[in-house]
Amino acid sequence: MKYAIGVDFGTESGRALLVEVDSGREVATAVYLYSNGVIDEKLPESGTPLEPDWALQDPEDYIRVFQNAVPQVLELSGVVAADVIGVSIDFTACTMLPVKADGTPLCTLPEWRTNPHTWVKLWKHHAAQPEADRINDNARLMHQAWLGRYGGKISSEWFFSKVLQILNDAPEVYAAADRMIEAADWVVWQLTGVETRNACTAGYKAIWSKREGFPPKEYFASLHPQLANVIEEKMTTDVRPVGQKAGGLCDRAAAWTGLKPGTAVAIANVDAHVAVPAATVTEPGRMVMIMGTSICHMVLGTEEHLIPGMCGYVEDGIIPGYFGYEAGQSCVGDHFGWFVENCVPAEYEREANQRGIDIHTLLEDKAAQLKPGESGLLALDWWNGNRSILVDVDLTGLLLGTTLATKPEEVYRALIEATAFGTRVIVESFQQNGVPIYELVACGGLPEKNRLLMQIYADVTGCPIKVSTSKQTPALGSAMFGAVAAGKAAGGYDSIYDAAQKMARLKDEVFLPNPAHKVVYDQLYGEYIRLHDYFGRGANDVMKRLKRIKAEART
Amino acid sequence: MKYAIGVDFGTESGRALLVEVDSGREVATAVYLYSNGVIDEKLPESGTPLEPDWALQDPEDYIRVFQNAVPQVLELSGVVAADVIGVSIDFTACTMLPVKADGTPLCTLPEWRTNPHTWVKLWKHHAAQPEADRINDNARLMHQAWLGRYGGKISSEWFFSKVLQILNDAPEVYAAADRMIEAADWVVWQLTGVETRNACTAGYKAIWSKREGFPPKEYFASLHPQLANVIEEKMTTDVRPVGQKAGGLCDRAAAWTGLKPGTAVAIANVDAHVAVPAATVTEPGRMVMIMGTSICHMVLGTEEHLIPGMCGYVEDGIIPGYFGYEAGQSCVGDHFGWFVENCVPAEYEREANQRGIDIHTLLEDKAAQLKPGESGLLALDWWNGNRSILVDVDLTGLLLGTTLATKPEEVYRALIEATAFGTRVIVESFQQNGVPIYELVACGGLPEKNRLLMQIYADVTGCPIKVSTSKQTPALGSAMFGAVAAGKAAGGYDSIYDAAQKMARLKDEVFLPNPAHKVVYDQLYGEYIRLHDYFGRGANDVMKRLKRIKAEART
Repeated sequence: MKYAIGVDFGTESGRALLVEVDSGREVATAVYLYSNGVIDEKLPESGTPLEPDWALQDPEDYIRVFQNAVPQVLELSGVVAADVIGVSIDFTACTMLPVKADGTPLCTLPEWRTNPHTWVKLWKHHAAQPEADRINDNARLMHQAWLGRYGGKISSEWFFSKVLQILNDAPEVYAAADRMIEAADWVVWQLTGVETRNACTAGYKAIWSKREGFPPKEYFASLHPQLANVIEEKMTTDVRPVGQKAGGLCDRAAAWTGLKPGTAVAIANVDAHVAVPAATVTEPGRMVMIMGTSICHMVLGTEEHLIPGMCGYVEDGIIPGYFGYEAGQSCVGDHFGWFVENCVPAEYEREANQRGIDIHTLLEDKAAQLKPGESGLLALDWWNGNRSILVDVDLTGLLLGTTLATKPEEVYRALIEATAFGTRVIVESFQQNGVPIYELVACGGLPEKNRLLMQIYADVTGCPIKVSTSKQTPALGSAMFGAVAAGKAAGGYDSIYDAAQKMARLKDEVFLPNPAHKVVYDQLYGEYIRLHDYFGRGANDVMKRLKRIKAEART
Repeated sequence: MKYAIGVDFGTESGRALLVEVDSGREVATAVYLYSNGVIDEKLPESGTPLEPDWALQDPEDYIRVFQNAVPQVLELSGVVAADVIGVSIDFTACTMLPVKADGTPLCTLPEWRTNPHTWVKLWKHHAAQPEADRINDNARLMHQAWLGRYGGKISSEWFFSKVLQILNDAPEVYAAADRMIEAADWVVWQLTGVETRNACTAGYKAIWSKREGFPPKEYFASLHPQLANVIEEKMTTDVRPVGQKAGGLCDRAAAWTGLKPGTAVAIANVDAHVAVPAATVTEPGRMVMIMGTSICHMVLGTEEHLIPGMCGYVEDGIIPGYFGYEAGQSCVGDHFGWFVENCVPAEYEREANQRGIDIHTLLEDKAAQLKPGESGLLALDWWNGNRSILVDVDLTGLLLGTTLATKPEEVYRALIEATAFGTRVIVESFQQNGVPIYELVACGGLPEKNRLLMQIYADVTGCPIKVSTSKQTPALGSAMFGAVAAGKAAGGYDSIYDAAQKMARLKDEVFLPNPAHKVVYDQLYGEYIRLHDYFGRGANDVMKRLKRIKAEART
């Protein structure tokens, strides 16, 4: 029997999954919680304080995932290293860092350790909005056609926003860096000793396309004179499609992991995108939702369409032969986590303790007893800005309809509904612009945890929702790509289609829309859209003005 | 030494206060918590369920206040009954009930006890909105000039809205009632054995004016044929100015209270209005705010002005010789109570316990460390509808600007600020319509409890705020009117001016506006007004539509 290992780098932890190549059976899994987690208040060791909206990580935490989680799955499974034919990783994106020519992260060098700009900028680092604004403004002024591929807006979360922030705020860091690189590619570099650049992050996060490459020099020069040659000076131009082999495991990485040197390592991939084939989707019409702290929505299309406010589309970006369309919601699981931490009274904690359940379960239980519309509440799910389709991190949350009789479970349900309305906006935006969707396939942590949420999503969107069998779809997807990197001759597969046929599956249960609930939710959705457009499209920019007043108050 | 007793009937309890007539010194106080409290879920004994928005009380609870709290203040003070020269009461309004010709409340009769319409309808009974709508619609159609006196809108809380609801929903109760009467007047009737009707509730709540009396028969007939003769059939037309003596204490009431039969009893008054002279205000320019579960705002004017959205103005309604203008906010202390009960995490409860303080104090402490604007939050204080200046109980609350970093104390402060903005709307509405205001005088429970709130009100309105020395201004005001009812010859006073000179005083400390805070709050107030007008004046009636959907979901 042959095995592949997928390693999924999330926001708080890295997970290794050892999978049987023939059947997709998940044999063993292990998680390493990053010791420095999300760094958003002060740097480790030096305690250098960070500004609001910053979110960093420690690249050494990623290495520790290999040192801890991979040996653990080998031990747990009893599988010998010789039977592991391939390894692949997936990552959050755009999560990037400046490194030296040999791959050494600047932040690991003593002279750079106290400069926040040398650390990994996590996907949810939101401090590069001025840079994103400039990127967008200049792109419009210079009629850059690529802007349309990204729904007309580049996010502050993306690669060049973050690079430009480094150049603007810490030119010495920019100068000292030989490479600006996605953490995903950096990790594969550490595994193989070979620098590669994957097409998925390049396409979705760094304005690259198979047909046109990167934006032209004069555009980069317009952002900052020193940025003109960023591609040649700071990045490799050898962009490689997903599904390829990056190289063999180097000796150092073999020692970390306990795997054999030379084991096939795949080109890096993105957590969301790698989950698509792992959720059985290798054809158009079925949208995959990776539901965790945020949601990534992915759907395949046969034609090229410009869709306002999406995150982007990349030819061959998810599955070879299709345009891979991506959209996103930036606050879903995080939303409920925030609510539980900040808004649930002690009385509820006591009730949960008495009943021996956790607080999320208690809230779900109470919220499930409410009917759609019964709370009179409506929320805009913008606690972490809006990714699709407004692409605006300066939008903030709204809760409307509260009375003195409003209960916590009503607010909780309204927040779930708001995220469901946010998903419906995305689904309709695809449908109205020529990318059909008739079914949703969910994976990630949330579908396992919250049945009420799944039913509400079905009721709100009117689409049936199926759920991936795997509780760790990205890691499974990575293992599938590891098997493809190894190839059929070594006991793996020659294509991701073949791997999906054998290794991916869905649960039998389907969440079907309740027609009576749908009628009420259609009304509420109408109200949501009206507020969405009023606050999100410039009629009343109060959220942005409050953010400005807030920033002034804090200085 | 002579004494007067004021009895203040609040929402949850009745309070007796025994006061030295010469000095205003408060000698003893006692509170009786209504045994049936606010009845808003089901009737006592029978358990008959109530619809949403209902709020009832038990009239026997009022009698128990006399039986418990008055004997207690006599005992506590050691004052003998012979030295108590006058008693006066004040009440929430409009709080009304149907009674028989001898004053027996219908709800105390076995055959009527299970019918919710026979019980006292408390001021915050909000189920008569359809009736209020009809009252307003017909008044506009029939060009009723009195509508202007009430800011163009009669509230669902007021007398004829509640009477019409009884007639519509329970015509048998209407038919069986010999009197529809304010609880304030009913209580004085119980004390004296004489039915009187006070000008304050008649003027502010029952569309009566000194110059024009009640609306005409044909107007009442337009609301309901059987209502045409409501004045003659169901009410006494002998409307008496405040400050007069209603009668002497009857034997039965003397037995309840331990006071002497024949002790002077004043005409009934309203809790808010009676507090004005107790807060030293007997002249124009200084607005009194009675700050508790809600806020009543009162200001005196020398001229008659029509002001949109106010609660009303009554000539001689507060202080003889002036027009007494009244406005109101329906959700202030209730707002913070709701927040503490529903939105404060267990961790905060633990911190408060460790520090040995209550949760309100902990929140105030944390919120006081924030600067204006620093939270990025803005709220509309409509958790209980909007009284002034929109007069619309179907409006609901809104919180905007939330992020994943939003903390409970930030929301708490935003709710305080929202109520302060609501007060500023009222102050500016008076000022812009010819009723000058240059100082605020606060009384009620909140100013004692929350210094941060007082400072925010000063910063937001730009007015200095003084605070009444008395912790129970309405009860003190009632005692003052008790002393006036007794008259100078009996050791009291001949006018409320004289009583205010001797018996009322303010604290030395003044809350002065912080000019730097005012600048920020001016910006936030601009945003508040924009949302206030958008959601409150018909541009987007989403709050009403959600209420309709909610009502449908519950049936």
